[in-house]
Amino acid sequence: MLPALQSRRRHIQLLIIKQGLPDDKIVDLLAEAERQKIPIQRLPKNEIDAMAFGKSHGGVLALCSPKPPASMDELIHIVETRTAPALLLLLEGVEDSQNLGYTLRSAEALGAQSLLLKKHLWDFDETAASRASSGAYERMPIVKIERGGHELEILRRKQIKIWGCIAGAKRTCYEVDLTGPTLLAIGGEKRGLSAAVREQCDGFLRIPMHTNATSLSLSHAACILLAEARRQRRETVISEQ
Amino acid sequence: MLPALQSRRRHIQLLIIKQGLPDDKIVDLLAEAERQKIPIQRLPKNEIDAMAFGKSHGGVLALCSPKPPASMDELIHIVETRTAPALLLLLEGVEDSQNLGYTLRSAEALGAQSLLLKKHLWDFDETAASRASSGAYERMPIVKIERGGHELEILRRKQIKIWGCIAGAKRTCYEVDLTGPTLLAIGGEKRGLSAAVREQCDGFLRIPMHTNATSLSLSHAACILLAEARRQRRETVISEQ
Repeated sequence: MLPALQSRRRHIQLLIIKQGLPDDKIVDLLAEAERQKIPIQRLPKNEIDAMAFGKSHGGVLALCSPKPPASMDELIHIVETRTAPALLLLLEGVEDSQNLGYTLRSAEALGAQSLLLKKHLWDFDETAASRASSGAYERMPIVKIERGGHELEILRRKQIKIWGCIAGAKRTCYEVDLTGPTLLAIGGEKRGLSAAVREQCDGFLRIPMHTNATSLSLSHAACILLAEARRQRRETVISEQ
Repeated sequence: MLPALQSRRRHIQLLIIKQGLPDDKIVDLLAEAERQKIPIQRLPKNEIDAMAFGKSHGGVLALCSPKPPASMDELIHIVETRTAPALLLLLEGVEDSQNLGYTLRSAEALGAQSLLLKKHLWDFDETAASRASSGAYERMPIVKIERGGHELEILRRKQIKIWGCIAGAKRTCYEVDLTGPTLLAIGGEKRGLSAAVREQCDGFLRIPMHTNATSLSLSHAACILLAEARRQRRETVISEQ
């Protein structure tokens, strides 16, 4: 819940807290709510249980707007103002909301600054995604794209190299330089990368597998590629810290 | 379903196929069932739906035993007979059955030969794990371990290096040689690696993160480490193919 307040991306109307939940367990949350003048209501456990999604709500709920998508302007601003070279992820398929959450969590942990998500994938369960992401869903700007061609063209003009991950690529991700401004595009498991996205790619790469018969889930492919970008960049990063 | 038949790890009593499902869609499955003399029964869709777990059964069910765990003898046999150096994974925590399935799928795709799983993690939903694994769950030997100390000692005597993944490790996974016979041990997200497993580790490694505040899910940590082992081994692998 704290990341949702801190990122200030959602409009939070009311914070609902379980009666009896000790203040010292949620001291940071209460301080942030006071700072933002968010009203707080204390309700008994059974009422909270009835309102909450699932059982693991921890006694805190928020009445809030969905998290709005980030704009391309916001994305460009991020790319232009961060000291580290851009590291962006584009997903054209997602297995489920929980995997989207895990992917966001890894993306943040590995230094990705933003996620571009195809519009038809936008219909996910926001609560499930947010929970699995350990707060990354609340913090990371997510740009909703139509077919992707237009947005990728803008990013290319900003000197961002666009790499498409496809099974048949000649080069592996270990033979490609991912240290500069980079966008990694990963297709859905069934259809792969769309033509609109392929057309904008500067090149293609693949993750080497043990046999041709096997494959990786989209979420695992994404985290392996991001980890490789991070590995290639690690010397720069150490000097930054 | 085909991987379950092919791996011959479960005792399959009966194959149930939806009436009207064209034979040419399941030609390999029918051939394998005939080879193994597994009886087949055709039932109407509604009866299959009522028996099946979830909706995406594809019209084929099996009446079968759970997949039995692999023995340490089987594991040793694998380690000693494969031409590639051992690559084993030990998990002390799993988020859920589906993530176990995805982890197995990646483990197989990245060349791991077996998974060691703590006994208390054995209580997973086998069907969910198997589906998410794209057949890897059926094919890969999974050894059920008690506390792990005994089994790891046996593996160490077989010259397998045991690396524990912990957040505070001095060396990153990129600074450790994973080309020889290797076991990668990953703890649960909450408790980390147990003392019994730590005591058997030859060394510890970590995955570098962008900030200390973030972390990776167990399943993503596992796939990044396995991918790194694969990367380090890739020259050997290319010459094998």
